[in-house]
Amino acid sequence: MVAINENYLKLKAGYLFPEIGRRVKAYAESHPDAAIIKLGIGDVTEPLPEACRSAMIKAVEEMGDRATFKGYGPEQGYGWLREAIAANDFQSRGCDIDASEIFVSDGGKCDTGNILDIFGNDNTIAVTDPVYPVYVDTNVMAGNTGEVSENGQYGGLRYLPITADNNFTVTLPEDKVDLIYLCFPNNPTGATASKADLKVWVDYARANDAIILFDAAYEAYITDDDIPHSIYEIEGARECAIEFRSFSKNAGFTGTRCACTVVPKSLKRKASDGTEVMLHQLWNRRQSTKFNGVSYIVQRGAEAVYSPEGKAQIKALIEFYLENAQIIRQQLSNAGIAVYGGIHAPYIWVKTPDGLSSWDFFDKLLNLCSVVGTPGSGFGAAGEGYFRISAFNSRANVEDAMARITSKFKA
Amino acid sequence: MVAINENYLKLKAGYLFPEIGRRVKAYAESHPDAAIIKLGIGDVTEPLPEACRSAMIKAVEEMGDRATFKGYGPEQGYGWLREAIAANDFQSRGCDIDASEIFVSDGGKCDTGNILDIFGNDNTIAVTDPVYPVYVDTNVMAGNTGEVSENGQYGGLRYLPITADNNFTVTLPEDKVDLIYLCFPNNPTGATASKADLKVWVDYARANDAIILFDAAYEAYITDDDIPHSIYEIEGARECAIEFRSFSKNAGFTGTRCACTVVPKSLKRKASDGTEVMLHQLWNRRQSTKFNGVSYIVQRGAEAVYSPEGKAQIKALIEFYLENAQIIRQQLSNAGIAVYGGIHAPYIWVKTPDGLSSWDFFDKLLNLCSVVGTPGSGFGAAGEGYFRISAFNSRANVEDAMARITSKFKA
Repeated sequence: MVAINENYLKLKAGYLFPEIGRRVKAYAESHPDAAIIKLGIGDVTEPLPEACRSAMIKAVEEMGDRATFKGYGPEQGYGWLREAIAANDFQSRGCDIDASEIFVSDGGKCDTGNILDIFGNDNTIAVTDPVYPVYVDTNVMAGNTGEVSENGQYGGLRYLPITADNNFTVTLPEDKVDLIYLCFPNNPTGATASKADLKVWVDYARANDAIILFDAAYEAYITDDDIPHSIYEIEGARECAIEFRSFSKNAGFTGTRCACTVVPKSLKRKASDGTEVMLHQLWNRRQSTKFNGVSYIVQRGAEAVYSPEGKAQIKALIEFYLENAQIIRQQLSNAGIAVYGGIHAPYIWVKTPDGLSSWDFFDKLLNLCSVVGTPGSGFGAAGEGYFRISAFNSRANVEDAMARITSKFKA
Repeated sequence: MVAINENYLKLKAGYLFPEIGRRVKAYAESHPDAAIIKLGIGDVTEPLPEACRSAMIKAVEEMGDRATFKGYGPEQGYGWLREAIAANDFQSRGCDIDASEIFVSDGGKCDTGNILDIFGNDNTIAVTDPVYPVYVDTNVMAGNTGEVSENGQYGGLRYLPITADNNFTVTLPEDKVDLIYLCFPNNPTGATASKADLKVWVDYARANDAIILFDAAYEAYITDDDIPHSIYEIEGARECAIEFRSFSKNAGFTGTRCACTVVPKSLKRKASDGTEVMLHQLWNRRQSTKFNGVSYIVQRGAEAVYSPEGKAQIKALIEFYLENAQIIRQQLSNAGIAVYGGIHAPYIWVKTPDGLSSWDFFDKLLNLCSVVGTPGSGFGAAGEGYFRISAFNSRANVEDAMARITSKFKA
C-alpha cells in the first residue's frame, strides 16, 4: 500500500488569501458600484524594464537559428549571469562571493522551500513571528514540526516575535537552534536589520554551529547605504549562512521568474560519522538532479538587469514604489494610524487603530473605503493587531486609496 | 548542530557524463584534427519552432505595457495552457483528463524528482534497468534506498530488467511494490509499450494498491497509432497513475523549459488513520507552496505548440529526428550491429558487437570513428553490453558519423 506524506495533513488549509478573496467577493457583490483598490498581495504592477524585454526578444530570436539555439543549459545557471550577479550584487559591496557559489533558479519561493532537501530531519528550526508563510509550511511538509496549535503555531518550531515592542529586532532564542530563517528588509513588517543586528546572528550561528537562511528578496529597496544588503557583509557569514535573492521585486520578474541562491564553499558541516561536508556540494547535487536550469530567454532578461540601461530602469521602478510607500506612510499617519516599514521596503506595517483585531480592521477598511490589505495575523500570532499594506500599485490607485482612508479615519 | 541530509552521501558520484567528458577531452587533445561528432546526450539541436518564438515575442511585448503586464500567475499554470494540453494531448486520444488535473511546470526532471515530496518513506520502489538515472537518484536523496552495491544498484530498490532477452518488456515484480516508474517510449532503450503491456501494469497497480509514475516525455515520437501516448488510454489508470509530460523533446524546449504533470482527482490513497486523501490535493499544495509557476512568456510559447502552425512545425521537427534515427538504424545494421528502438523514439539502443563491454565499445567508437555515444551500463547494470545513440543532431553530422562507422565496422 502506498504511503503518502502525512506531514501534509498537518498543514492548516491555505486560509489567508482565500479568506481575503472570499470577503472581497462578498463585498463586491453587495456593492457592485464600489471601485475596490487592492493593496494586499505583494505583487508588482508596473511594466518589465525595457532592457530586460529587449534582451529577452534577442534571446528568443537566437533560439530560431541553429547556430545560436540553446538546449539544456547548466543547471546552476549560465556563467555570464552568475558572474554578473557576483560582481554587481556581492563583490561591489565587499562581499567575498564567487560566481561559482551562485545558483540561478526560477524563484525564491522554490529555493527557500527546496533548501530543506539538503538538511536532515533532526534540526531545531527558528522563524520570526510574523513570518513569510513558506518558511513554516515547507518545514511542516518536510516533517520538521509537530501539530498546529490553536493560535496557528506548529509544535517544535521556535517562533521569535518581531513587533513594535522589540522595535522589530529579532531577539536571540533562549535555547539552541540549528536553522534560523531571517528576512531583511522584512516581509511583512518592512523592518530592516543593521550590520550590528546581523552580527549578533552571525556570532550566534557560529557559536552554536547553526545556519542562517537569509532571504534578501527586498534588498533593492534599501535607501540607506549603511544597511547591509547581504548577510555576507558581516564577517564570518560565509561559514554560517545561505542567502536567497530574487529578481521579482527589483526588476518586476514575479511573472517572468528568476532568482538565485548563494551557498558559499566555506559553509561546511559534519555528517554523523565526522566527515566534513560542503553544503555547496549538496545543493549542487540537489539542483543538478532535481532541476534543469532557468529558461535561457529568462536568464538573458536577468542579465540585462545589470546593464547600464537596466540599472537605471530598475532604479526608477524602485523609486516609484518607494514614493508610493512614502505617500502611504504619510497619509496613514495623517489619519492617526501608526505605521512602520515602508522606507526600505515596499510594505507598510500598520498598527491597527483602536485596538482592532487584524481582521476587524480588514473589514472596516474594506467596508468604509473599498480598500483591501492583508491582516497581520495571517503572517503569525505576533502579527495580530497589525496590517500589511503594499506599495505595489499605480500612483493613482495609491492616492485614491489614501484619500479614502484619510476621509474616514481622523487623527 | 545542524544535521545534513546524509542520504546524499550514499549517491554515487555523477560518473557517466563526467567520465564521457574526460575521455572525449583526452581524445581531442591527442587528436587535435579529429572532427568529433557527439551523439551522446539527449539534447535537441534544431531551432525552436517559429510559432513558439512568435508567441514568446508577443508575450515579452505584453510585459512592457502596464495593461497587459503579468505578475504572479497561477502556480498550476494558466488556464488557457492547461485547457490546450487537456484537449490536445489527452481528450483527443479519448483520455478522460480535465484541465484542472494538469500542473504546468518548468521541467519533467523537476517533476519526476519532486513528486516524491508527496509520498512517505515506507514505500517499496520499482524502477526498470536500464533507467533514467533521476528516478533512482531522487529516491536515494529522499532516503528511500539503502547503500549502493558494487554493480551500482541501491539496496531496497526493485530493479526490473528490460533487455533484448525479454524483448524490452518490463516483467512484473515478484513481490509487492508500491511505486513503479515506467517510461515509454523508453529512455534509453527506445522501446515502446503496447496497450496490452500497460494494461498489465495498471491491473497490477490496482490489485496491489500501487501507483505508477508514468513518464511520457517521448510520446510525440510514436508513429504507430495503436501505441498509447498516455497511461490514461488504459482503463483504470485514473485510479493508479501519475503522468509526466514535457515540451523538451517534441517542441525543442530543453533550454526554454516547460513541462506538465497530470494527477487525476480520482487518484486517492488512505492515510494511516484511514482518511482518504486525494493525491491531487497533495501535489497542488506542494506546487502552491514550493513553486511559483512557469514564466508567462514560456507558457505562451508552450501554448503555441497547439496552434495549427505550431503543430505543423513540431511534426516536421519530429519527422526530421526520426529520419535521423532511421538512417542510424539502417547504417548500423549495414555494419552488422544489432539495433533496437529508434522507430518510435529518438534513441537507438545498440547491442555492442563482439561482446564488447559498453565502455570498450565507447572507446572503440571514439578512437576509430571520432563518434561519441553513451555507454548503456551508465543507465544501469542491465544496460551493460548496450550503447545509446541519439538522433538529435544535424543530418550532415548523422550521415558523416554513420559513414565513419560503416567504413570501420563490417557486417
